[in-house]
Amino acid sequence: MEKTILKVQGMSCGHCVIAVEGSVGELSGVERVLVDLKVGEVAVEYNPGTVTLDKIKETIDDQGYDVE
Amino acid sequence: MEKTILKVQGMSCGHCVIAVEGSVGELSGVERVLVDLKVGEVAVEYNPGTVTLDKIKETIDDQGYDVE
Repeated sequence: MEKTILKVQGMSCGHCVIAVEGSVGELSGVERVLVDLKVGEVAVEYNPGTVTLDKIKETIDDQGYDVE
Repeated sequence: MEKTILKVQGMSCGHCVIAVEGSVGELSGVERVLVDLKVGEVAVEYNPGTVTLDKIKETIDDQGYDVE
């Protein structure tokens, strides 16, 4: 299991939290995902054998947010 | 049919637009509703014989936004 913290721009309200946590949390191999709205960060715990970090970033991007 | 523009605080993203336009638009007597995210305004066209302005304000408030 790996942990990473992504800087994500554009998350501005509770709906954004739901969109990001919901979509990333549904990915197979993602154990935990937590959005910190104030600092614009997404903490993810995942199994790198099942899901790639690129896939996680792509999923956030698909919700309309910029991953730095 | 009456038209009014409400100042609403806290709408910050596309999800907020969907939440406000969706909930107000579903009210019986509301003909049109349009959110302007940049200026924080909600324009509503409604039939005052069917729905009150108070009901419209309450619906926006219930979504978590402050109507001025």
